[in-house]
Order: sequence, then C-alpha cells, then structure tokens
Amino acid sequence: MAVYTEVSDEALTAFLAAYDIGTLLSYKGIAEGVENTNFFLHTTAGTYILTLYEKRVRADDLPFFLNLMEHLATRGLACPQPIRNRAGVALGELCGRPAVIVSFLEGVSVKRPTPDQCRALGGALAGLHAAGSDFGMRRDNNLSVEAWGPLFRGAEAQADGVSPGLAARVCGDLAVVEAGWPRGLPSGVIHADLFTDNVFFIGDDLSGLIDFYFACTDAFAYDLAICLNAWCFDADGTFHRDRGAALIAGYEAVRPLGADEVAALPILCRGAALRFLLTRLVDWLNVPPGALVQPKDPLEYDRRLTFHRGVTGAGDYGWVE
Amino acid sequence: MAVYTEVSDEALTAFLAAYDIGTLLSYKGIAEGVENTNFFLHTTAGTYILTLYEKRVRADDLPFFLNLMEHLATRGLACPQPIRNRAGVALGELCGRPAVIVSFLEGVSVKRPTPDQCRALGGALAGLHAAGSDFGMRRDNNLSVEAWGPLFRGAEAQADGVSPGLAARVCGDLAVVEAGWPRGLPSGVIHADLFTDNVFFIGDDLSGLIDFYFACTDAFAYDLAICLNAWCFDADGTFHRDRGAALIAGYEAVRPLGADEVAALPILCRGAALRFLLTRLVDWLNVPPGALVQPKDPLEYDRRLTFHRGVTGAGDYGWVE
Repeated sequence: MAVYTEVSDEALTAFLAAYDIGTLLSYKGIAEGVENTNFFLHTTAGTYILTLYEKRVRADDLPFFLNLMEHLATRGLACPQPIRNRAGVALGELCGRPAVIVSFLEGVSVKRPTPDQCRALGGALAGLHAAGSDFGMRRDNNLSVEAWGPLFRGAEAQADGVSPGLAARVCGDLAVVEAGWPRGLPSGVIHADLFTDNVFFIGDDLSGLIDFYFACTDAFAYDLAICLNAWCFDADGTFHRDRGAALIAGYEAVRPLGADEVAALPILCRGAALRFLLTRLVDWLNVPPGALVQPKDPLEYDRRLTFHRGVTGAGDYGWVE
Repeated sequence: MAVYTEVSDEALTAFLAAYDIGTLLSYKGIAEGVENTNFFLHTTAGTYILTLYEKRVRADDLPFFLNLMEHLATRGLACPQPIRNRAGVALGELCGRPAVIVSFLEGVSVKRPTPDQCRALGGALAGLHAAGSDFGMRRDNNLSVEAWGPLFRGAEAQADGVSPGLAARVCGDLAVVEAGWPRGLPSGVIHADLFTDNVFFIGDDLSGLIDFYFACTDAFAYDLAICLNAWCFDADGTFHRDRGAALIAGYEAVRPLGADEVAALPILCRGAALRFLLTRLVDWLNVPPGALVQPKDPLEYDRRLTFHRGVTGAGDYGWVE
C-alpha cells in the first residue's frame, strides 16, 4: 500500500509523448498494491492505470503477464488491457523502472462477498480459464507444491513464536499434501491470486479482474481452490458453505469439473491454504525496518487449514453432483 | 502519503446513500496528503475526492475550512467544492472520522515551476484574496510569529544535532522577526500553505488550488511571502529572481501591493521561511516509530534563510516599482 517511486510531471509528460492517448490532465499515486507503484492517470483520451514495477516483480516475467492481459482482453475478459505506444510496445521505462499503462476498470472490491458475488466470480474464473486456452506462452508456478517445503524450512524455527504448535501443524499438512498432490489435472493459464481485492463489482455484477502478476500455468481446479480459500471463509476460519456452493456452481455453469478435479478438490484446497500460510509467514518474519506495508496475518490460513483437515470430500465445500 | 483509515465498500455505499451523487463505480485510496486520508471517488454522477480527517486536523476548524471552500468556489475560484448531502450538510462521518466529499479538480502539480507558472500562481493568489474578502468567518493564524518562539524552544536543544550552528542561526532570525514583525497590513483570508503540490496546472494554465487546511485570517502579503519561499527557490537555496518577479507581477496585476506591504516583504519572507523551518524541524525530531510519512527536510528552509538574511529590499525578490 504505497508509492515506492515518485514520478515528476516532467518525467510523466515525456513518457506519455510516446503514446497516442492524448495529453495529461491529472495523476495520483494509488495506495494499493504491495509489490508495485500504481498511479491513477487521466488524459484527454481517457482513464488509465500507470504501473511501475518494483524489484519484487521479475522483469523476465513481464512479457508473460502483459501478453496474457492483452490476450484475455482481446477474448472479451474484463481485465486491464496494456496500452501499446506508437512503436507498438506496451512495456516502457519510467524513472528507471519497467512501466506500463493499462486501461482503467470501474468497480469496487467487496470485503464480505455474498453467494451471488461468489457465483459471479466462479463464472468469471471459468471464463478466464477458457479465454486463456489458446494463449501461446507458459510460465511455471514457482509457488506450487515443490516450493512449500523450502519455504517452510526457512521459517520453521520461528513458526512456534508466531503461534504455538504451528511448526508441527504445517509439517503435518505438508507431508499429506506432498504425498498426495494430484498430477495430470486439466491445466492452462490460472490467475493464482484471485483474492477479493483483485475482483471488481458494480453492485452484484462482476466488472473486472485485475493483478495478473502471479498468473502461471497450472491446474484449473487449483485456481478454484485458491478462490474457495479467499472468498468463502471469515478471518476466524468459519467456512460459508453457501458461498462455496455458489462459487463452484458458477464455475461449473461455464466449465464443468471432471471427476478427477472433483476428487482432488480437498487436497487442492488444503495445498492452496498452505501456500498462502507459508508466503505470509515468511513475509511476517521478514518485515524490513521502515516497511510501508503491513504484512498480512498468516494465522488466517492456519485457521482455514483446521477446516480443510476435517474435509472428507468436495461436497464439504458445496459441490453437488 | 498514506491511507490511515480503511473504508469498506459497505461503509462507503451506506455513506453515499445520504448524497445525491449517483451510485458508486469505483474508489481508490490516494497516496497523497500527510494529514488526512483521501480517496479518489467515481460515481455515476461524476468524479470526487472523499477526505477522512485524521486526528491532526481539529474538528472545530472544519466548518471554517469547508465554508471557505464553498464560498471561494461560489465566487468562481477553481478550488474543491464541498458536496452537501440531501440534508444540506457537507460534513459527515465515516468509519468514525469526520468526512467530506468535494469536487475533483483536474491538473498536475509541477515540481520545477516556470516563470509563467509563477505568474499564473500570483494571479490566482490575488484572486483568492479578493474572493475571500466577503467571507464571514475568521480563524486566527496559530502558526504565526507568536508561535515560533515556543516551537523553537521545544526543538532548540536538538537543533544542532540536525545541523551544526542551527540553534544560533534560528535564534538570530527569531529575534529579528519578532522585533520587526509588521502589524496592520491589509488582511483577510489567506491560504497559508500554497506549495507546488497544492496547485494544479494543465500545461501552463492554472487549473485549481487545493488543501485549504491551513487557511486562516492574516496579512495578504504574508501569503505572497510563503509562495515566494515555496515556488522560487531550489532545494539547495538558490533563489530564482525571474520566478519571483513573475509571481509578484502576476499578483499585482490583480491586486497591487501597498507601499507598506512592499516594505514588509523582506521580513515577511524571512518569517515565512522560519515558520516552515520550525514546523519541519519539530516533525523531523518527532517521527513516530512506524511512521508512514517521510518528514520533509527542515534544512531546505535553513538554506533559504541564508538568502533572506542578505536581502535589502523587495527588489531583491523581483519586485519592480
């Protein structure tokens, strides 16, 4: 939640001269996004978001993310569309940072999603999976099951200081998930970070998906499992089955799950919870001095794991045959 | 530069229901303003700024600020216009904070003003002074000469740790300014904080003035002296006489200065520099742990004072008879 890089009016005006989007009317740094610096940008041609990529985003990955957004937008998905400059290039440089202008999406992030909003999310998620099916690039998921063991071992010694018994609980989950992780599920482009703050609504209508900077090639059902974690629990770990049922039904209305995906849903949900627990735990234990960003609470996902451990089948998440 | 208060979509939707400005399309926290939390707000009726007042603004002062903005906007000044709700009230409450919606102004703040932009600023400043002449409220300037001694004494012991000899330099300036501070100059509503980030331009055209939260009743020429400090120096203390001349000429094209104001300009400029040196010094020495805001460098004003000490008359700032 910060502007890491200041951009002067002179630097921005010079940058915009390479684009065919009119002249500058106003720009404001947005207190959103923990990885990058974002500006709301208004020109005589319209409204945009200007993003400067800070060091946590690998420059090598940017073509994947930008081409993907362009591909999905072309397929009709409501997502930010990178704006190409007069030379036909979307990725520029501003104040020494890789920088991109994308189209602005109206809409508001919900804090407590309703079942109707979960249903709309499910449909949009399946639409994203379908729209990405003919996207020509691939990017491995570097935060999938192979990454969790090393992440855990880096945080293990300090885990019980965050919550007594946390190390043993994570160790147990990790053993189960590593042993049973499903292979060969239907795969393609997934968003991999579709939390409520990355989905916009106007009323109950889903108006857009943003923040594709964790997108990668992985199992579609794992993306659904991430959404079940992010959308259907309270912070105290309470699962809302009505939201889960609506999310899954909304997804299946566009892309029905195969039997293998349904069977794998419990372990995918448990793995997704572990993934966010572990990255949050590492961030929690490594807050730099003077940090502008408050780390997110890893224990929210410890509480969700309590639910996942007791699950006996996809029906517990609201799936119905 | 921070969002101090998070506002949920539900809280904002409920707040907006009292207003006649359409329904919510989007809102983003703006990384601007060190005192308050600001959101860019877009509804079906238009574009606005939503401000939540944090504890550094005294709630008792809000009616002065809001009525002043409304008065000035009604007189045609390009400044944020507070939006009244259906009950006719501009000042509301959101998330436990006093909150106001104001109209959005297009424009960009310049970092290195040109003489033409200084001339435009001078005209707008005189226009503000004229537009405020029939405003019915008054607010004493609680950061004028009487406040500087106490501010200095609170920081005196630590001043030389910030810059060797600073305490003695400030002590000397304070003695001169306190002894010679002019009384009885033409007075009225002044902005009192018209730094470059509070003035918007589209190209060389001044499009708006914002941030009236230091506005008060004081000498008009003191407001001009603040602008000479804020607009006509580089950070290293270099004075740009061409900018000063343009600023003063732009002001006098709308409201000519009296002989008493011209004579007082040097001490007013020295006092204005002292005011910002002292408040910045106090902030510098009192950065709270975990602060989201980087304090501004007090020594910029120490360097400006070096210039002011050598001034022999208003001509040194670019005034011409």
